[in-house]
Amino acid sequence: MPSISKKGIQMPESPIRKLAPYAERAVDDGKQIFHLNIGQPDIKTPRLALNAIRNHSLEVLSYSESSGFKSFRDKIASYYKTLDVDVISDDVIITTGGSEALLFVMGCIGDINDEIIIPEPFYANYKSFAIQSNIHIITITSTINDDFSLPDIKEFERCITSKTKAILICNPGNPTGHLYSREEINQLAQLAKKYDLFLIADEVYRDFVYDDSRHYSVLELNDMNEHTIVIDSVSKRYSMCGARIGWLISRNKTLLATATKFAQARLSPPTLAQIAAEAAFDTSIADTKETVAKYKKRRDTLIQGLEQIDGVIVSKPKGAFYCIAELPVDNTEDFTRWLLEHFSVNNQTVMLAPAAGFYANEKLGKKQVRIAYVLNRRDLLQSIHILRLGLQAYNKKK
Amino acid sequence: MPSISKKGIQMPESPIRKLAPYAERAVDDGKQIFHLNIGQPDIKTPRLALNAIRNHSLEVLSYSESSGFKSFRDKIASYYKTLDVDVISDDVIITTGGSEALLFVMGCIGDINDEIIIPEPFYANYKSFAIQSNIHIITITSTINDDFSLPDIKEFERCITSKTKAILICNPGNPTGHLYSREEINQLAQLAKKYDLFLIADEVYRDFVYDDSRHYSVLELNDMNEHTIVIDSVSKRYSMCGARIGWLISRNKTLLATATKFAQARLSPPTLAQIAAEAAFDTSIADTKETVAKYKKRRDTLIQGLEQIDGVIVSKPKGAFYCIAELPVDNTEDFTRWLLEHFSVNNQTVMLAPAAGFYANEKLGKKQVRIAYVLNRRDLLQSIHILRLGLQAYNKKK
Ligand SMILES: Cc1ncc(COP(=O)(O)O)c(C=O)c1O
Ligand SMILES: Cc1ncc(COP(=O)(O)O)c(C=O)c1O
Repeated sequence: MPSISKKGIQMPESPIRKLAPYAERAVDDGKQIFHLNIGQPDIKTPRLALNAIRNHSLEVLSYSESSGFKSFRDKIASYYKTLDVDVISDDVIITTGGSEALLFVMGCIGDINDEIIIPEPFYANYKSFAIQSNIHIITITSTINDDFSLPDIKEFERCITSKTKAILICNPGNPTGHLYSREEINQLAQLAKKYDLFLIADEVYRDFVYDDSRHYSVLELNDMNEHTIVIDSVSKRYSMCGARIGWLISRNKTLLATATKFAQARLSPPTLAQIAAEAAFDTSIADTKETVAKYKKRRDTLIQGLEQIDGVIVSKPKGAFYCIAELPVDNTEDFTRWLLEHFSVNNQTVMLAPAAGFYANEKLGKKQVRIAYVLNRRDLLQSIHILRLGLQAYNKKK
Repeated sequence: MPSISKKGIQMPESPIRKLAPYAERAVDDGKQIFHLNIGQPDIKTPRLALNAIRNHSLEVLSYSESSGFKSFRDKIASYYKTLDVDVISDDVIITTGGSEALLFVMGCIGDINDEIIIPEPFYANYKSFAIQSNIHIITITSTINDDFSLPDIKEFERCITSKTKAILICNPGNPTGHLYSREEINQLAQLAKKYDLFLIADEVYRDFVYDDSRHYSVLELNDMNEHTIVIDSVSKRYSMCGARIGWLISRNKTLLATATKFAQARLSPPTLAQIAAEAAFDTSIADTKETVAKYKKRRDTLIQGLEQIDGVIVSKPKGAFYCIAELPVDNTEDFTRWLLEHFSVNNQTVMLAPAAGFYANEKLGKKQVRIAYVLNRRDLLQSIHILRLGLQAYNKKK
């Protein structure tokens, strides 16, 4: 048989999807599953977006410019202007989801064995994109006891070598929910400047920020135009995950010209979805606020509930719609599988994401799970109830 | 300034888009341009496909399975059954265009400095995907005098090293229009088998086959299930380039499992476009035949016209909708730019793709252009007229 690449063998299986066969069997057994394992919001996609597609009058579905429709890039630029962030359409390249933007950026900045520094735990697919790009991720561990805030900046500095090309943060964080403070961002910026590194911020959850906190984008930094790159997406903001529309923003002309070549190679981002996404930006601020208020309630429900379960440690997320919880079990992969295979309350069970896959050193996440609060409050309450009983039963059985 | 990767610097600019600034200026000057430079068909997208989108009742645009909707993969499998090619839905992974399928496949089979063999001239973006994947393309040159048929198979064999992982052909070919015979495919298959290489066929133009010739898919080969991989797409077949829907097919389970990990990393192919593409497959065979008949007429018009221009050599393409023509000029990059900048007939001019970018050794394509016959007959005739006068004027001026 012809041989598969080492790269292909190293590509991790999605930590979320490893459990899928057990979930399927649970459903076959007649169980209802509450999905707290994936970041697929239940919020309806804006009507404006769906109607733009229903009412389109295209006759030939042709390629768009490789960097995306100009009208859409204009719209994105004006969106940032409402946030007092100065972006022009030429700073924007539309991509097939934030995912593709990440892949382009890694390709633009990293050659074989180059390194990027990422605080862990981090979005698991960064690993896959790095492997695909033949570059290495160097991690600095943030901890649940510290609410996953930025580790001592000296730890970052110690990791910098001639191979280091960038620091990548997710703000607010998946899976941590951590929202970086202005002070934290400034520290990273100074370091990036000092060592001439790119500072990449994955801001796909930038709208999901609670408690009157303010999101601080790396695009707001002074004197960092050559260094900063932002990854963004309509997936979470407008509950349009299936559209596959994201973008990258940079004011570094060389980086943009390079990313454009990656964009040209794959010809065009999806055109129908660009039309829908452009329309979504006309969603009223009131609607967005309503969505965020909904998530805030869900977060409060979840955190309060988890805090009341014996032995559970939980961080208080300030953004995104995830939290990491440490459970009183030895191995959350075994436990989450057991919940699907052997446990239910009134024929209902919960699915959680074991956190090991969000760490480079998987051991660090062995006792943790990531919980996505993408369900309505009633289902969340029921999920917490099931989790509490599940933990009791699991620990009694041993 | 932070540094850009060597890979990023090496990524070629699209040979087609290099001319874009000149075209823009020509349009600003009031010229009308006949675009024979890109494979963007003017054919209307099937109403079935567009209506599927207009009439959808989705409320949340969520991710699909990473390998695409099951119903769509079923539909694709039944399409191949109508061609007597045995494909099941599990052999199919839906991708964001054939482009992404190519990128996945290169990632699955090639590590750093591994090699794939491709007859040249070839689809220019293979180069970009190879650079992105840190692998090398080794080319065997096919010639216009031979109608770009398969070079002596011994030449392929001589190039095989321990680094060789695959042979990639485009059938029918972009930019050559060459349709591989059963005999040619068999020779390649024997070689792939002998050295345990993947045989990858990019069959995105498989429906565009003329003169009652028959397309011979690598999926029809006996005893090659572990070796063959097909790249396909709705872009050209249904004039749905902007949908960004393609797929890869293989019966090699390890390859499929590996490609699935690449698919999981980027989460999902576009969902709206999958709905449209699935519906497009219900297009009647009569409609498809009509489209192909239209292209055949266009091809005949173009070839006959070109053959009558002094000094022009042209191959007779049997498939796809491109041909390579050798022009009586020293450098087609200069000539095609000149056509845009300095030439017009009644304020009309033509845009052609210089062929250098379709060769690894760019010199081999210096006198050639690729012409896409994606315009109606009247416009084609006018384009040929302009080209003839343009060549005369260009060569007189020197
Ligand atoms: C942190 C983060 N970045 C990027 C993405 C990619 O999203 P998409 O490709 O749908 O824009 C996700 C999706 O879950 C994410 O959580
Ligand atoms: C030979 C060949 N392969 C693949 C593609 C990719 O097409 P798409 O990504 O639109 O499916 C093209 C597009 O022109 C092509 O000509």
